[in-house]
Amino acid sequence: MSSLRQKIRSYVEANVLGKERALDTFVDNPLATYSSFVDLGVANWWISKDFGGRGVSLEDSVDLVDELSYGDAGLAFAYLISIVPSTMIELYGTPAQKATYLRRMAEDGCFAATIASERAAGSELLKTQTTAVRAGDSYRITGQKLFSTNAGFADHVALFVRTPNEDPDFKCLVIRRTTPGLRIVKRWYTLGLRSAATYEVALEDCLVPADAALAPNGLRLLEAAMNPSRTLIACCAVGIARRLRDLCLDYAKHKRFRDDHLNSSPVFAAKLGQMEMQIEAMRSVCKSAAREYDELRRSDEAGDRLLGAGMLKSVAVAKLFCGQVGWQIASMASEMFGGLGYTEDSLVGKLLRDMRHVSIIEGGEDVMRELLYFRHVLPKHAG
Amino acid sequence: MSSLRQKIRSYVEANVLGKERALDTFVDNPLATYSSFVDLGVANWWISKDFGGRGVSLEDSVDLVDELSYGDAGLAFAYLISIVPSTMIELYGTPAQKATYLRRMAEDGCFAATIASERAAGSELLKTQTTAVRAGDSYRITGQKLFSTNAGFADHVALFVRTPNEDPDFKCLVIRRTTPGLRIVKRWYTLGLRSAATYEVALEDCLVPADAALAPNGLRLLEAAMNPSRTLIACCAVGIARRLRDLCLDYAKHKRFRDDHLNSSPVFAAKLGQMEMQIEAMRSVCKSAAREYDELRRSDEAGDRLLGAGMLKSVAVAKLFCGQVGWQIASMASEMFGGLGYTEDSLVGKLLRDMRHVSIIEGGEDVMRELLYFRHVLPKHAG
Amino acid sequence: MSSLRQKIRSYVEANVLGKERALDTFVDNPLATYSSFVDLGVANWWISKDFGGRGVSLEDSVDLVDELSYGDAGLAFAYLISIVPSTMIELYGTPAQKATYLRRMAEDGCFAATIASERAAGSELLKTQTTAVRAGDSYRITGQKLFSTNAGFADHVALFVRTPNEDPDFKCLVIRRTTPGLRIVKRWYTLGLRSAATYEVALEDCLVPADAALAPNGLRLLEAAMNPSRTLIACCAVGIARRLRDLCLDYAKHKRFRDDHLNSSPVFAAKLGQMEMQIEAMRSVCKSAAREYDELRRSDEAGDRLLGAGMLKSVAVAKLFCGQVGWQIASMASEMFGGLGYTEDSLVGKLLRDMRHVSIIEGGEDVMRELLYFRHVLPKHAG
Amino acid sequence: MSSLRQKIRSYVEANVLGKERALDTFVDNPLATYSSFVDLGVANWWISKDFGGRGVSLEDSVDLVDELSYGDAGLAFAYLISIVPSTMIELYGTPAQKATYLRRMAEDGCFAATIASERAAGSELLKTQTTAVRAGDSYRITGQKLFSTNAGFADHVALFVRTPNEDPDFKCLVIRRTTPGLRIVKRWYTLGLRSAATYEVALEDCLVPADAALAPNGLRLLEAAMNPSRTLIACCAVGIARRLRDLCLDYAKHKRFRDDHLNSSPVFAAKLGQMEMQIEAMRSVCKSAAREYDELRRSDEAGDRLLGAGMLKSVAVAKLFCGQVGWQIASMASEMFGGLGYTEDSLVGKLLRDMRHVSIIEGGEDVMRELLYFRHVLPKHAG
Repeated sequence: MSSLRQKIRSYVEANVLGKERALDTFVDNPLATYSSFVDLGVANWWISKDFGGRGVSLEDSVDLVDELSYGDAGLAFAYLISIVPSTMIELYGTPAQKATYLRRMAEDGCFAATIASERAAGSELLKTQTTAVRAGDSYRITGQKLFSTNAGFADHVALFVRTPNEDPDFKCLVIRRTTPGLRIVKRWYTLGLRSAATYEVALEDCLVPADAALAPNGLRLLEAAMNPSRTLIACCAVGIARRLRDLCLDYAKHKRFRDDHLNSSPVFAAKLGQMEMQIEAMRSVCKSAAREYDELRRSDEAGDRLLGAGMLKSVAVAKLFCGQVGWQIASMASEMFGGLGYTEDSLVGKLLRDMRHVSIIEGGEDVMRELLYFRHVLPKHAG
Repeated sequence: MSSLRQKIRSYVEANVLGKERALDTFVDNPLATYSSFVDLGVANWWISKDFGGRGVSLEDSVDLVDELSYGDAGLAFAYLISIVPSTMIELYGTPAQKATYLRRMAEDGCFAATIASERAAGSELLKTQTTAVRAGDSYRITGQKLFSTNAGFADHVALFVRTPNEDPDFKCLVIRRTTPGLRIVKRWYTLGLRSAATYEVALEDCLVPADAALAPNGLRLLEAAMNPSRTLIACCAVGIARRLRDLCLDYAKHKRFRDDHLNSSPVFAAKLGQMEMQIEAMRSVCKSAAREYDELRRSDEAGDRLLGAGMLKSVAVAKLFCGQVGWQIASMASEMFGGLGYTEDSLVGKLLRDMRHVSIIEGGEDVMRELLYFRHVLPKHAG
Repeated sequence: MSSLRQKIRSYVEANVLGKERALDTFVDNPLATYSSFVDLGVANWWISKDFGGRGVSLEDSVDLVDELSYGDAGLAFAYLISIVPSTMIELYGTPAQKATYLRRMAEDGCFAATIASERAAGSELLKTQTTAVRAGDSYRITGQKLFSTNAGFADHVALFVRTPNEDPDFKCLVIRRTTPGLRIVKRWYTLGLRSAATYEVALEDCLVPADAALAPNGLRLLEAAMNPSRTLIACCAVGIARRLRDLCLDYAKHKRFRDDHLNSSPVFAAKLGQMEMQIEAMRSVCKSAAREYDELRRSDEAGDRLLGAGMLKSVAVAKLFCGQVGWQIASMASEMFGGLGYTEDSLVGKLLRDMRHVSIIEGGEDVMRELLYFRHVLPKHAG
Repeated sequence: MSSLRQKIRSYVEANVLGKERALDTFVDNPLATYSSFVDLGVANWWISKDFGGRGVSLEDSVDLVDELSYGDAGLAFAYLISIVPSTMIELYGTPAQKATYLRRMAEDGCFAATIASERAAGSELLKTQTTAVRAGDSYRITGQKLFSTNAGFADHVALFVRTPNEDPDFKCLVIRRTTPGLRIVKRWYTLGLRSAATYEVALEDCLVPADAALAPNGLRLLEAAMNPSRTLIACCAVGIARRLRDLCLDYAKHKRFRDDHLNSSPVFAAKLGQMEMQIEAMRSVCKSAAREYDELRRSDEAGDRLLGAGMLKSVAVAKLFCGQVGWQIASMASEMFGGLGYTEDSLVGKLLRDMRHVSIIEGGEDVMRELLYFRHVLPKHAG
């Protein structure tokens, strides 16, 4: 095990395990909750060494997110989701943007947010109505944005907008969160991931310099930059599933069943054997996605190639697979604790609620299946 | 539709729909929450006309619970679960017990509770440690009981105990809830069914008259009397599933998808078609169980025959089937609302949490499968 | 158990059990294979007493098909499928047609066939290209028909055709199988159901009297008349599943596992408990469909009401449900016999191949789901 | 793509595609069927270069078996299964055994077989009754062996026996197939994999030199040597699934559906997207197993380490996962071709029958789950 992974495991043991109840609330001050992780000095572990970061590969990031989500998937999500704007900046930003934002992420462990989805534009971003209208050296931005994790306290945000009469007609702009006109409307109460904080955001005549806009088409840019986040969201299922497995084992170790303990029961063994197989399969699939991404990322013209590729096939596979299989595991586990498992004295309900996000966030199952078919199956195999 | 069913549907429309958020908390005074239903004059609808009740069959009760759980499964559960003690009393009670308890249930709409499970004796009641020791004309009862719904405010309770040195060595006693020595330890915080109230109970030198004990072996008695409750718990899955379906339809009616609304999407149609099939299958299975029970119940020597039969095969089938299929429906539905479905602005999370109980309460899946095999498959088909 | 059911069970025990290998071939002369059943005097058991039949309800027919398919689903299918034309004739035929065809079915036990599907018109009968052109008192029929079970030896057939320039523009005609111009092209080799015989049929300038045409729109007629066949096809899954269960039990009774026999293994018990639950659920769902059909059938103006209803919701439910659940059972069973279960020394492979037809014949899963949604969900619940 | 993989793909295109019907029979002379592959010069591609072989890693073998099983899984199985005895010999054989057998496998492309399972000793090899009794420099072997693929024509076989009064008390012996006393009892007729040939074998006073016995405990040896075969059997599911996918695509390309072709249908797209995800997940899982094995294989003291490890966790995962997911794919595909898919005019039935073997051969699902739990979950996580 790498020393970084070990460091994060120790952090989880010291700061997370046993505190799940408190984390499973909507704490008023998320940043305070996250401070121990920031103090650890490993936040935004993926930022390149060129900008003072640790340059951890996506393949190794899979293990780190596995460790974090074993403790609490909300924390894992809050920590990993900054990878979307930082990937945009690292691959497509100007030297000034990199120097400004990436260095701060590496040095201060600050958070970043992506502000994209709208009420009518969730999986169909073409329906986006937030517009950035060019006026001289500035854009004036107006619109309502539905979900943005970390937006309440991030250092900077990547903002996805329609740019009418321009080519490309969708852009991503990187701006400070404190830019006037960017207003937090409310925080969402979510079924799970409650230690993460997701916000509704309004843009009200928000004026930003035109050079905040990244050059590529915003749609392609967003899709390209969600490759690492989608992989790591998939990977949250591995950590949550391992935690569920250990809860089951711990319960079965102490639970009398017939004249023995439940952990000797063949039916229990069959369930846990199935669960272990599924955990390992999820891990393999996440690793495959991460390796494909890392390879592309290390190639010449990684930015262009990634824009061309859009969502990698292996990433869609990991997201869809872990959403489904993670839910199967959570479903099985949540049935096997008897009545106590239906009370909040048990963590299984929280883990079930946390697991649900893997299938939903950053692209539901239908979206993934459709994309796999129309981009990766139909063109290549229909002879 | 029967007028009683229509009455309950109207009650749900007027008193439950739109109030789910409030019901999804652990209200301090459950009885106040239930008062509008009691006032309706239909509480404990199954009590025989001989005792002033409505004498609704289990087959028709399936429809009533379907209506109630469409509104809120916690209410449905709180209202139906009194059927366990009343079935015990109606079939095995003395004339005095019937006159006392059944009349009050019919006339006052009061609640009853069953106090049986213990920490080490959930599915394995043979491990029960609460004992009732005979002392003259009384029993002195001592022990800790884990889960008892309605125990905090019920009029009377059926208490399952070990009776050492007696034959049978397990009994059920019917006593007033206010009997000294019966103490509520705490209320449970549950994942769902939050408008029902489930309690931990202590028996501390609780002295009750010996004639409170029902004659038959307590183990067989409890199993016999859970036939109607298990059927009606299964049936909660039908109501919750119908509600999920209607949520999906309502969402899809307003949600734009491509150039149309989501409710015209073939993939959405396929999911809802599957869901509808499963809803109807659950209803068929519940009705089959209810009919078998009703038939047995109407036969001569219904009490003896029911004791002999124990859990009916069709009841085990309904409980296991609706637990599994209800969960499949809730799983499918909870994935298809996009991000909004992961927030508490949507009811889908509550319905998912409510649905989980069907597989768990009054016998988990492993228990049902094992019972089906060892009682109904192996003896009859292994030739 | 009814004496008729007992009679069929005895027939199966004497004539089918132990002969499955021979039945699992494409015997040259299917009629000879079926003769023992015809000799039994129960063939076409559903024909009304008005025409010399037994008038067995669909609800009771479910049990008969269950018994037959326990022995061999191919036989069951060959025997039940004549119900489609006989239902058309009984409900919509002229007195002469009834006297001719129904009496013969009741008295001689002869077979009937439906000739409808075409290569481009399987689930989409609107694409039917076989045409019946009116010429005086006759129709001249030309076309190619893909699948018709029993067509090689049936007494008479119901032929589905397009009738250009007429209203309605689709009709069903009842004609003798030996009508010149009706030619058997080939027999199909099928994955299972090999004791049934399904044929490709050509109509080559086939001249039939105009009064062979039944009055109603052929599309609605066909759909109405497939209600009983679809219910009984669903029910084949029950019989096949019971057979699989008994194979499993028989195997486990003799198979050593650890220090005991496999039938004492908890993991085996869990599988068989699940299987038994699913068998009973299938039976409930089939019975519900049969009861709805019987009730409609006994009503005044049954013919019109059935035309109006088209495929009953409960029938679509039974067909879709038993197709899916039957396959789950066959899948589970086919995995648990070790290597021997993969050889033809075991019947499990045959039963798996036979089970596959339930999902496929007379409407695949997509068709059923779509129909359930667009006819039964969307109009009634989308408020 | 490696040139070897390309070579095998070309072989499949030229020699297998289009000939599936002929391969789906139990040809009298399997060796003649296999001759074109042997002539290609790539048979036993995994034999080390030290003995004149190609030394292909297991990771690369996954791709080769994927290509072969895309064409015909029976051929793939016949070609890959020789890896069990050759792994035994390469890791644990004497120099003489290696020189004799491995060189011949590399140079002549001859086949090898493993003779292990018995009627009462399938997954429980401890129940093995075939005994090898030491008599001077020889063993005299007597017993009945149930399944052995390739045994009818192999060059040599690894024979698993009980060695009473010796330590270890189970051994594997490598002998020529033509050794007197080794008799083929019969060939098995199997549900699928019909181009492979599996035999029942009798050992009747079969006298072999004592130095034919490999040194390690036969039980551990067999388990260690099945790591590569189990991985490659899992991998057959990938090839069969890819073939099913392409059949579906080809069908949908030509099938009219509504006003378009089926391959534009969103419901079809959803199924194929799901299938593609599952194919990629299977591939990832097989590759993970192969990499773990290769790494162990390349280590110092690979033989001892492999004996100590027994079945690798990743190998159990791959076998169990691909058995389950491959079957899901085959189940889905086999339902979607309408009636034609139920006839032997379509390959889908054959592919379904072929797929079934992945869950069954070399260890059923229960065995894999139990092993995963008791060896890899319980000891390591039950803290």
